[in-house]
Amino acid sequence: MDRAEQGKGRYKVKKMLVEEINRVAADVSEVLRDSLMLDGSQLYKAAYHLPSQGGKRMRPFLVAKSCELVGGAAKAVMPAAAAVELLHNFTLVHDDIMDNDALRRGVPTVHTVWGVPTAILAGDLMFAKSFQIILRTGVDDGRARAAADVLATATVALSEGQHLDMSFEERDDVREEDYLDMISGKTAALFEASAKIGAILGGGSNEAIVKLGEYGWNMGMAFQIYDDYLGLTSKEEVLGKAVGNDLCEGKKTLIIIRGMGSDAAPLLRAVMGKKSVPDEKIATLLKQLQENGTLDYVYSKAKSYVDVALGSISAFPESAARESLYQLAGMAISRSR
Amino acid sequence: MDRAEQGKGRYKVKKMLVEEINRVAADVSEVLRDSLMLDGSQLYKAAYHLPSQGGKRMRPFLVAKSCELVGGAAKAVMPAAAAVELLHNFTLVHDDIMDNDALRRGVPTVHTVWGVPTAILAGDLMFAKSFQIILRTGVDDGRARAAADVLATATVALSEGQHLDMSFEERDDVREEDYLDMISGKTAALFEASAKIGAILGGGSNEAIVKLGEYGWNMGMAFQIYDDYLGLTSKEEVLGKAVGNDLCEGKKTLIIIRGMGSDAAPLLRAVMGKKSVPDEKIATLLKQLQENGTLDYVYSKAKSYVDVALGSISAFPESAARESLYQLAGMAISRSR
Repeated sequence: MDRAEQGKGRYKVKKMLVEEINRVAADVSEVLRDSLMLDGSQLYKAAYHLPSQGGKRMRPFLVAKSCELVGGAAKAVMPAAAAVELLHNFTLVHDDIMDNDALRRGVPTVHTVWGVPTAILAGDLMFAKSFQIILRTGVDDGRARAAADVLATATVALSEGQHLDMSFEERDDVREEDYLDMISGKTAALFEASAKIGAILGGGSNEAIVKLGEYGWNMGMAFQIYDDYLGLTSKEEVLGKAVGNDLCEGKKTLIIIRGMGSDAAPLLRAVMGKKSVPDEKIATLLKQLQENGTLDYVYSKAKSYVDVALGSISAFPESAARESLYQLAGMAISRSR
Repeated sequence: MDRAEQGKGRYKVKKMLVEEINRVAADVSEVLRDSLMLDGSQLYKAAYHLPSQGGKRMRPFLVAKSCELVGGAAKAVMPAAAAVELLHNFTLVHDDIMDNDALRRGVPTVHTVWGVPTAILAGDLMFAKSFQIILRTGVDDGRARAAADVLATATVALSEGQHLDMSFEERDDVREEDYLDMISGKTAALFEASAKIGAILGGGSNEAIVKLGEYGWNMGMAFQIYDDYLGLTSKEEVLGKAVGNDLCEGKKTLIIIRGMGSDAAPLLRAVMGKKSVPDEKIATLLKQLQENGTLDYVYSKAKSYVDVALGSISAFPESAARESLYQLAGMAISRSR
């Protein structure tokens, strides 16, 4: 096979991965619809608003494929996959209130439409529902209990991570390790939990659960670093929210932290925390961060986590599920949003 | 025994009940301290703020006594009792944001001290911790799973109840049955869950779990009706918050709903939703509601739920735990705050 054919092959595989993700997403959407469209109240409408807008659905896919990798049936864990996605969406609803964000997935955020009180409550409802759903998964009591425990533990980490993220906004001394600590809680913990929950419910051994947890955590680290990268380098219509949001909010992403130690520091300082940043200033900033190696550094960092993730599952026998997980890890640092 | 001696006997018993509640409360406080004083971060301080202020701790007591009533050991369910109390406190932290309340238990509310974003997050953390704690109770998997499911289901009901409560503020057509529906979710659901969780973890039969659930629900209904009653008839130093808060917020309590159909309606209409109501106006209003029978009606309503609660556990063999639950039900409608 020459290089052109290899390239084509890769393209085909990627397209298949997206189709596979979409199939899981469709099953998950059905569970979410059934759980949240119980009545026509404003509370349930608010709770269903964000899940009904789709999203990447990487976490449910991770639950499904981790389950398959240890020999379980993905269909059986669709409720658990939906529970994880719902929990993720609950954190987004509350994060959007805290960050005062008006747009998410290209549509107005829950608190923008229904007001802060109902948005807080809708998040709480989504949280409670996600536990109800995972506890009612059709597996033995031991697995259900363990899966719910993993989900609760991830939520503790998520809260801690989000709190660090907020506290960073007022700090000027945030180091790279602080950032990594923060995204470990804010993002990687739920990817780790997704993979573990799939492995637990699929009947995996303790070793398999640990290995898949490692895969998920490293994949989540890569995903978040790349997500922050996209937040500064993509276009608004692709992101579904304003470019430079992170800059305006004073978010301490890895690009910002590294950039502050580079010759881009004066320009960065001039735009951080401003209400809005003109496109041309962002363009100049990006050019500088490109030329001084900051963007490359950040991308390599994300890639190094992907490499560890791939290593964590390399000892599993070859299978379609392992191949999907390999590709999913690659997608974490090659998607456009 | 003459009447005076009977009276003394009752007083003694009540004092013993309070001491008993305090003993459970001390054990619960220890679990809460251990769970929330993990690090010195502002997030954990915010999460520990309200639980550290005490509170009536009726729900943990209900968990403990329900466990004992079915033959379990109360000590073993202290973590679960703490989980229920923590979940209750989480809802208070979020409710205080939604209702914009500045005081709770005589101290500033979490969002007043740490701001809304940290208060939202502290509530989320408390929620997650409560599931972690209940799932890690030292019982078999089946009971742990069932107890966590009851807690999740109660939280769904709590969210629905709080949403109804908020929506009532803008409505003028709230009927008595709407109010009862609302407090069923907002309050009775967690009392029901507390009793059920105690019975489940104590190893009770399905029938015992159902009966104790009935007891808890009816006790909760009585508790909330009487709580709304106290909110209008007590003094600020007893309540720990301003008298007439409910009036100012336009809360549709049973007193208000009944009062609106009485000759007190004009005065009620004049004060509802006002920023503050002078003490003399509240005094006049109360006199009118007393004379036209509204207060008596509301108190009888609360008492009728207590009677049903007592009936729900009358078939259990006589025991110290049953006696405590009898007295607890009585306390729901005779406490001073």
